[in-house]
Amino acid sequence: MIKPPRFKGRRRIPPPKVGPTRDLSGLFAPGSVAVIGASSRPGSVGHSVFRNILFNNFQGTVFPVNIKGHSILGVRSYRSILDIPDPVDMAVIIVPAASVPETLEQCAEKGVRYAAIISAGFKEVGGEGIELEERVKAIAKERGISVIGPNCLGVINTDPDISMNASFARGMPLPGNIGFLSQSGALGTAVLDYARGNRIGISKFVSFGNKADVTEVDLLAALGDDPMTDVILMYLEDLSDGRKLIDLGREITGERERSKPILALKTGRTPQGVRAASSHTGALAGQDEVYGAIFEQGGVLRVETIEDLFNYAMAFANQPLPKGDRVAIVTNAGGPGIMATDACVRYGLTVTELSDSTVEALRPQLPAAASLRNPVDLIGDARHDRYAAALDLVLRDEKVDAVIAIATPQEMTEFEETARVITEIAARHGKPVLCSFMGVVDVSPGVKVLDEHNMPHYIYPEAAARALSAMHRYAQWVSRPRVPVRRFYVQREPVDQVIAAARSEGRVFIPECESIKILDAYGFPTLKYRLAKGRDEAVEAARSIGYPVAMKLMSPDVIHKTEAGAVALNLHDDGAVRTTYDAMLSRVKAHKPGANVWGVMVQEMAKPGKEVILGAKRDPQFGPMVMFGLGGIYVEALRDVTVRLAPISEMSAERMIKSIRAYPILTGTRGEQPSDLFAIADCLERLSRLVLDYEEIQELDINPLLVYQQWEGAKVADIRIVLSPPCA
Amino acid sequence: MIKPPRFKGRRRIPPPKVGPTRDLSGLFAPGSVAVIGASSRPGSVGHSVFRNILFNNFQGTVFPVNIKGHSILGVRSYRSILDIPDPVDMAVIIVPAASVPETLEQCAEKGVRYAAIISAGFKEVGGEGIELEERVKAIAKERGISVIGPNCLGVINTDPDISMNASFARGMPLPGNIGFLSQSGALGTAVLDYARGNRIGISKFVSFGNKADVTEVDLLAALGDDPMTDVILMYLEDLSDGRKLIDLGREITGERERSKPILALKTGRTPQGVRAASSHTGALAGQDEVYGAIFEQGGVLRVETIEDLFNYAMAFANQPLPKGDRVAIVTNAGGPGIMATDACVRYGLTVTELSDSTVEALRPQLPAAASLRNPVDLIGDARHDRYAAALDLVLRDEKVDAVIAIATPQEMTEFEETARVITEIAARHGKPVLCSFMGVVDVSPGVKVLDEHNMPHYIYPEAAARALSAMHRYAQWVSRPRVPVRRFYVQREPVDQVIAAARSEGRVFIPECESIKILDAYGFPTLKYRLAKGRDEAVEAARSIGYPVAMKLMSPDVIHKTEAGAVALNLHDDGAVRTTYDAMLSRVKAHKPGANVWGVMVQEMAKPGKEVILGAKRDPQFGPMVMFGLGGIYVEALRDVTVRLAPISEMSAERMIKSIRAYPILTGTRGEQPSDLFAIADCLERLSRLVLDYEEIQELDINPLLVYQQWEGAKVADIRIVLSPPCA
Repeated sequence: MIKPPRFKGRRRIPPPKVGPTRDLSGLFAPGSVAVIGASSRPGSVGHSVFRNILFNNFQGTVFPVNIKGHSILGVRSYRSILDIPDPVDMAVIIVPAASVPETLEQCAEKGVRYAAIISAGFKEVGGEGIELEERVKAIAKERGISVIGPNCLGVINTDPDISMNASFARGMPLPGNIGFLSQSGALGTAVLDYARGNRIGISKFVSFGNKADVTEVDLLAALGDDPMTDVILMYLEDLSDGRKLIDLGREITGERERSKPILALKTGRTPQGVRAASSHTGALAGQDEVYGAIFEQGGVLRVETIEDLFNYAMAFANQPLPKGDRVAIVTNAGGPGIMATDACVRYGLTVTELSDSTVEALRPQLPAAASLRNPVDLIGDARHDRYAAALDLVLRDEKVDAVIAIATPQEMTEFEETARVITEIAARHGKPVLCSFMGVVDVSPGVKVLDEHNMPHYIYPEAAARALSAMHRYAQWVSRPRVPVRRFYVQREPVDQVIAAARSEGRVFIPECESIKILDAYGFPTLKYRLAKGRDEAVEAARSIGYPVAMKLMSPDVIHKTEAGAVALNLHDDGAVRTTYDAMLSRVKAHKPGANVWGVMVQEMAKPGKEVILGAKRDPQFGPMVMFGLGGIYVEALRDVTVRLAPISEMSAERMIKSIRAYPILTGTRGEQPSDLFAIADCLERLSRLVLDYEEIQELDINPLLVYQQWEGAKVADIRIVLSPPCA
Repeated sequence: MIKPPRFKGRRRIPPPKVGPTRDLSGLFAPGSVAVIGASSRPGSVGHSVFRNILFNNFQGTVFPVNIKGHSILGVRSYRSILDIPDPVDMAVIIVPAASVPETLEQCAEKGVRYAAIISAGFKEVGGEGIELEERVKAIAKERGISVIGPNCLGVINTDPDISMNASFARGMPLPGNIGFLSQSGALGTAVLDYARGNRIGISKFVSFGNKADVTEVDLLAALGDDPMTDVILMYLEDLSDGRKLIDLGREITGERERSKPILALKTGRTPQGVRAASSHTGALAGQDEVYGAIFEQGGVLRVETIEDLFNYAMAFANQPLPKGDRVAIVTNAGGPGIMATDACVRYGLTVTELSDSTVEALRPQLPAAASLRNPVDLIGDARHDRYAAALDLVLRDEKVDAVIAIATPQEMTEFEETARVITEIAARHGKPVLCSFMGVVDVSPGVKVLDEHNMPHYIYPEAAARALSAMHRYAQWVSRPRVPVRRFYVQREPVDQVIAAARSEGRVFIPECESIKILDAYGFPTLKYRLAKGRDEAVEAARSIGYPVAMKLMSPDVIHKTEAGAVALNLHDDGAVRTTYDAMLSRVKAHKPGANVWGVMVQEMAKPGKEVILGAKRDPQFGPMVMFGLGGIYVEALRDVTVRLAPISEMSAERMIKSIRAYPILTGTRGEQPSDLFAIADCLERLSRLVLDYEEIQELDINPLLVYQQWEGAKVADIRIVLSPPCA
């Protein structure tokens, strides 16, 4: 018997709290591997994969499988995996797509529990390929094989105790503490080449292709548990399970003794024809906003380019997190110091004022022409000793959380020695130091030293500032207060009744007089109202509510009330109510003959307030989500909205409110009173609860919610609820 | 006599139409150079500069000047420039700051007409340095010497007929067609090193430092005329003359037979404490917005990072401009194709649909699994011939304006040969082709070929898409319709009177009843009004204007009318006017006892419309400018405004209106009618004229301008004019 493969770890990690995760250890550290479709023909994928395993110091045993021939690259080969005399932990499959299901069956028979299917020709080509992939899925499930792919590049583990390159990428990456998961194989090859060229170390690399069985979530869990991985990078084109990614992301990024940052690059074209949506929320919370919400809620840092992905990863992998946003800049030239300052400010960092004691301590160390204030300018003739003295003093300053050290090629610049002292001094203080050695040729001896010591460096200071800003955001995420999702007292019965009534009548649209019952039952701040079935009843209702009132005609057949002339505002007396009642009814008869009229809703007039929009929708892929944005005519023009998957905590609600561009309007400009943000957050949380409780609710707009001054609450001024089509 | 130095050109260029420009030919191509402060001590700046001239194949004569010693690096040296027996065209000065004025005097005596002062210790150190710089300025002016610096890196000209490196940068850049102007010397060294490392060719490089004499505008004019320069890059920390930069920029970028793109990177921290401004325009049009306006109006492309600067420059320097925004992507892998598509869409390009004939022609050339639609995916086993066939067909397609060619490292990828065919085929079609060879190590043989053929390439396709987008924007700029600034019929007399009255009373604030006269005289669409001095006069005014009316108390002492209770809207009858008149007067008496009350302005009530804000202010450095933005409470919260230096053309006004984020509100969302954009543009042009005509106007807000549906115009609902302090 072969020992069950397992990670050799530097530290024991508690199992994740997020559901049971799959044991993928055999994919990363198999004792024996069969390469099915191994080939002796140079240039073929079967050749590359086998050669990559054989020639990169694999610590287990590799068996080539090929129907032809006796040996490949000098290694005894087998016609079938079933002919291999020893047990096989993992199979790498490179046979034509049509033969893959049969091959996988043989693997199962052999007792193989892990497989990477590199072959293409499945879902991605459509037609028969889709069917083939379904068969692969079924076999994997039935026979208990964990399958990577198909249509992928393979798996790499640089751990010296394993040293496996089961992929057709050229070359083996340097070992390191950055894990990389890529949905695209081609991007994987490019990224591995980039990492090699820039001496960036990789712990594990997986290209997961069509993810017929093992998904990005499974792999994320594995890298989350992997003691060799400190930073996880993901290249994604879509997501299999948004909710799981959120839960697992939160877990890995912030709930463990050893939390790890996750950086994700998500691409994928916006569909050319966006589906017409019948609500604001539907129209505004597009796919990209939803992905953004998932990353945000899971603590995953979203980046826009591969360059950022690695620029950030280098910083995370090798430097401690900053305790705050206060940056000091040490430079040997003014211009680049200004550039760095601009960039820090642009990316939300503070170029801090140094303590007086630091400035005084710097004075004797630096020439008279130097700048002792931040950015600290050592001026052009600074040798390494001046860098050493300044860096040490600045890092000691308790007003400094992080340092960007800049060196430009000047006549006196000693790049190699300067790199050495920066590395040494940075290691002493437990604060992040990022370098910018500006240039390519002259700076290269220094860059070599920085690389040897895993010191993050960037050609231009802007990139250092961006990376530092990402570290700061992550540090804030890790140290955020944890707030559970609030429970509310709600009444389910009225909601059940309203939905049942609509269902029984085959309606999906819920008129406002019914929608308002739902919101009332969930504790939203609604306006007083009564449904009047006749003119006199309307007057009576208006009197009991108190003038002025609004009137809205209620009919399941009148969806756009304003357009149908079925809304009247600011009615001040009995006469106005009577006239309006009659006018409304006759207008609707003209506008929509035969409409089923339930009556006229007489409603308290809301005080004017700031208009915001709250919404909810059920995403076909990711389920219920809530939206918040600026109301009025601006919501569509500016698309200034934010979404989150339900449920949300009070803290998430707060972050939503603060994340819109128009947030300053709510905090009060020009000496205005701030708005009641708690009231908005409360409504958002109730909305989250409501759409989680009732999966019948397809779309819901509260537009506008009128928000008043702090402590004065908010009022729902209009509601629109649409149910999902009955009995799907 | 030495022949006057001049450019040896490939093509004759007509002189620029923008004023007389300075002849700086002697700075770039002197027949003889004296290095004053040349030194034999390695590591000193005086040594570096002299060595750089001597060892980089200078085609003229160089004379070292040093008070000590007989020769430097084997070249006969002189104690003073006056001792040099031959004429000297240019002096490079590296003596201590205090000796510079005297040295410059000697240069003048010697008949030197050009000098680069490399020495530091002037304006940038403050105190005596400022005085020294003033003396340098004076000498330069009096003695007719064109001076670069002080506090700069020097001048480089790579033209083989000149080959001068009069700087202390390490190494000589490769010759090329990119000119670089840098305000920062240190950034200059970094940039030159970066260019050398990336094999980017430079035509001329100037670090201009403190620009005591020669400014960035003079140098821009010189590079605009330089036949060796096709693209101009500028690194700026401030501007000497915004208006001149606009005029010269327009000239160079679009008004010549051989137009050249100008790319600028502007840094400089926002001042920590922004000056309190009394108007919206003052508060919103900050320094950075003003620089943005200058670049925009001058056709200068503003970039945010040095990386973009060179990424764009490589494309501009070596590829033709695209005729439109339609991009085709050719790739050997799907993922990077998606990345490129995303990036194109993000940067405003169209990933076009290929013609049916192109798709049909591609079919027999590509394997079945390839994608014939854009992005054209040649799939992983594509060799160079497949690239050649696809690229040629796609470039022939008249629906394609530009191509991004992507190659990822796959088993079959032939980078070298692929680079060769891309280069050859791209040259045939007159359309821009940008490459992304993704990676560092594996791709390097291909990258070498691309470099040899000056084919722009980028590690990741996003950068290619960004560069292409910059080219497209520039192409649009070049081909934009040229519209002159409109002349209006205006009456100056009423304006003169209002301003004279204010001046005579020592007021800078113009109450609305006077401001409105100014706008009337300049043809703005104002509301009907009358100033009433008593209760009955107010009623009479209201009747003649027609109900409903607004009333506003007029007093030069009441600047914030609303806060003082001095505004009433929507008054429907005589009674309301009477009551309001009395109430207003008593409120003002309570609020501001002793206020000088002129009366009450009775004004037509404006129909509701979309609210925008128009403004003007006089920038202390750059003069009069106009602002446009979204009105209402959003203007401050969203800062959604745009500015331009006056005068503006109709076209500039249109671009202003279209450039705000809230523009969709004006074009009509949700089936609304579009607003009257012409009316807004007309007001902006009139405003531009007004602030040019009256330099007394310091700040002006029209807030809001109410805009109605197309053809229905706009109305000025409120105005605020503040004059500059009298007799500065």
